[in-house]
Amino acid sequence: MLPVEPVLAHLDLDFDQAVERLRDLLRIRSVSTDPAYKGETRQAAQWLADQLTGMGFEASLRDTPGHPMVVAHHPGPSGSTGPHVLYYGHYDVQPPEPLELWNSPPFEPTIVDARHGKRIVARGAVDDKGQVMTFIEAFRAWHAVHGTLPGRITVLLEGEEETGSPNLVPFLEANREELAADICVVTDTNSWNIETPAITYMLRGMLYLEVTLHGPSHDLHSGMYGGAVLNPINALTRILAQIHDDQGRVQFPGFYDDVQPLSDAEREQWRGLGFDEAGFLGGVGLKTPRGEEGWSSLERIWARPTCDINGIWGGYTGAGSKTVIAAEASAKFSCRLVAGQDPKKILAGIKEFLDARTPPDARWDIKTFGNSPAIKVPVDSPHLQRTMAGLADIYGKPPVLVGSGGSIPVVGYIQRILGFDSILVGFGLEDDLIHSPNEKFELKCYRNGIRSHAAILARMAEG
Amino acid sequence: MLPVEPVLAHLDLDFDQAVERLRDLLRIRSVSTDPAYKGETRQAAQWLADQLTGMGFEASLRDTPGHPMVVAHHPGPSGSTGPHVLYYGHYDVQPPEPLELWNSPPFEPTIVDARHGKRIVARGAVDDKGQVMTFIEAFRAWHAVHGTLPGRITVLLEGEEETGSPNLVPFLEANREELAADICVVTDTNSWNIETPAITYMLRGMLYLEVTLHGPSHDLHSGMYGGAVLNPINALTRILAQIHDDQGRVQFPGFYDDVQPLSDAEREQWRGLGFDEAGFLGGVGLKTPRGEEGWSSLERIWARPTCDINGIWGGYTGAGSKTVIAAEASAKFSCRLVAGQDPKKILAGIKEFLDARTPPDARWDIKTFGNSPAIKVPVDSPHLQRTMAGLADIYGKPPVLVGSGGSIPVVGYIQRILGFDSILVGFGLEDDLIHSPNEKFELKCYRNGIRSHAAILARMAEG
Repeated sequence: MLPVEPVLAHLDLDFDQAVERLRDLLRIRSVSTDPAYKGETRQAAQWLADQLTGMGFEASLRDTPGHPMVVAHHPGPSGSTGPHVLYYGHYDVQPPEPLELWNSPPFEPTIVDARHGKRIVARGAVDDKGQVMTFIEAFRAWHAVHGTLPGRITVLLEGEEETGSPNLVPFLEANREELAADICVVTDTNSWNIETPAITYMLRGMLYLEVTLHGPSHDLHSGMYGGAVLNPINALTRILAQIHDDQGRVQFPGFYDDVQPLSDAEREQWRGLGFDEAGFLGGVGLKTPRGEEGWSSLERIWARPTCDINGIWGGYTGAGSKTVIAAEASAKFSCRLVAGQDPKKILAGIKEFLDARTPPDARWDIKTFGNSPAIKVPVDSPHLQRTMAGLADIYGKPPVLVGSGGSIPVVGYIQRILGFDSILVGFGLEDDLIHSPNEKFELKCYRNGIRSHAAILARMAEG
Repeated sequence: MLPVEPVLAHLDLDFDQAVERLRDLLRIRSVSTDPAYKGETRQAAQWLADQLTGMGFEASLRDTPGHPMVVAHHPGPSGSTGPHVLYYGHYDVQPPEPLELWNSPPFEPTIVDARHGKRIVARGAVDDKGQVMTFIEAFRAWHAVHGTLPGRITVLLEGEEETGSPNLVPFLEANREELAADICVVTDTNSWNIETPAITYMLRGMLYLEVTLHGPSHDLHSGMYGGAVLNPINALTRILAQIHDDQGRVQFPGFYDDVQPLSDAEREQWRGLGFDEAGFLGGVGLKTPRGEEGWSSLERIWARPTCDINGIWGGYTGAGSKTVIAAEASAKFSCRLVAGQDPKKILAGIKEFLDARTPPDARWDIKTFGNSPAIKVPVDSPHLQRTMAGLADIYGKPPVLVGSGGSIPVVGYIQRILGFDSILVGFGLEDDLIHSPNEKFELKCYRNGIRSHAAILARMAEG
């Protein structure tokens, strides 16, 4: 077993250089959504491939119809018996606009002093370049000290996560054999706080619909027809209003049938997290929790399925007044799903719900965008246990196991197409301002992240 | 008493010229909404003033901040004892777009043969130039035959009816004395059918609101917050859904308190009208009547107050999906009011309804656009009785007395500011395509309209 302590010592001596290398990567304007940056986006991919090549990986760019993938392999030491780990990340970043709200130029990475010590401010500082560099630098240190990595590693970095990863699924399907591994590590989530690491072991799934209710053959004058005919906006609001009962329970048939219950152990652990509900609500101008009766805010977000209307439109929406009865009305709504729920069954229940409430003479158009089940990594998974140990090695305390209200689609794709789970361990903080001006990454988090990945690599190799 | 028969005989001989004069007026592109036509709009006003001057009126243009008013006075014969009648109309027209759907150029009035004989096709053919010319030509014939009109007449023509009459109320208020009369005649409605005239004696009123429900301080990510916080779109739909109960009755407090009941006589008369409900619904792609339980379609439109949502919007409405919880959601809705209802009381009831349903942490913005009570002309009004007689003289049968689901704001303004009722008698047909391409006016209706106005003038003068 190759020891981790000299690797950690090396990392400390080399940390300032690791910061400079992150700054080099951040200067490359890899904005995936804007064709003007197509060349620099590729340049960022090449930079990472070159770094990996220098650490003993076989690394190359793989072209797609969009931005290239970076794929790299390291065989690890001969006779290695630990799991083959796939590391996933993305090298593209959000656009920086609005520029006038940045305190320093978004692609001129700037070190500033703040409440946790120094931080680096740039677009991509944490999402996702800072987080990707936590494992890249861990690899580098292992290679520098031991001439190898402690286990067999594959790296997959994409350049389109910020634009919906349009080429990821075809790439995974076409390269199943090459990307085979035992476990994936995704570094795109947050710590619990700056002192306490976290592993996100539950992600909600997603089902997204757009519905249009059609009524009269064209818009009508509400004087000539009002009170005597179907009004699709009135009808749609009456139907959407029935999605929840007065206790906040979703009324789609079968919605809760397959929901995996929350264990007492999980409920207890979450209660002990000290979640600041007043701060959570107050930060968005609210005071009153609101949702499914009988569940706490954290339970509602991490462990309960939901339905939110994301958009609604119909009729006259311009200035002033127009006395129209619109021919149609539309809404987009989405369900966050939890472990156990099958998106196809939920969709069937929603269609049954809408059918049963369709007024005479009306008809629906229904489109779905997005359809992914929830993810729950078993707590007794050996990979999760080893990751917990690696984090405890660095932080001096175990990580908290947290759920997430959101969905990370790549985790579902990897499960479905490659056939293995992902461990979600990340080093961001809630106030990092991802997708906003003045995105930052605390240097304390960067350092702890690199050290944690180095330790996790060791722990994984033990198995 | 000046006899009407020679006037009618003159009208028959002169009808082809009357058609040519209508065509002259229709060629002037008096599109009030478009500044490019400002000069031609004034030209149409001047044309009408000149016509009236040639018939013994004292006529002039009165400038406003927008398009001018035409005001004309004729003293009638000396010793005249009949009522002083104010005639109202508008000389502006809707824009003609979309041009490619016209079978002939919108401002090149074209005579075509169709199922009722010849018709004239042009923008403004019926709304409102054709209808205005029915009384202008009646005046002309009276003047040509008798050298005077049979009674005292004032004419008021505005140029902004299609753009909401922004200068009408100030003009009425500033010219109350000059515009004083005993009764107004408005020719802007329809006959019952081509053989049967109609007087519209009931108009619904209007109250129009725009409401916005505010919740969180900004848009939220539905993964991070969904299921745990107020969603303003969900909340707004739940509130709007409560506007009607399952029997279609509006739930605003006090909504029906002051509604004047429908008399048995009215109910019987309307039942005898032979209203074609299947055609009414079928013409807009519907089969099933829908509204307040216990009332027929005609009763619902003419005699019952209503609430329709005219527009709704909030959240993400673009292509594809965005998992947002919107910070706010909005709707425009309007109530058609009936005789007896006070718009101010109804507005107070709506605010009470919304207040009682405001979720914790939410707040409303409420705007009102438009606020006018219903109009009901007493059936025993002598002016209405004389108008009925005039129509019977020409059509050989009495007119039907009809309600209207819509509102005609000028009728309310004249009541409120000048202090007298309006008789609504018009010669349009349901299929005239007002506000649409290929707007037309049947020459049979134009002729009957001119003759009817000539007869009504005589009947009015008898009183």
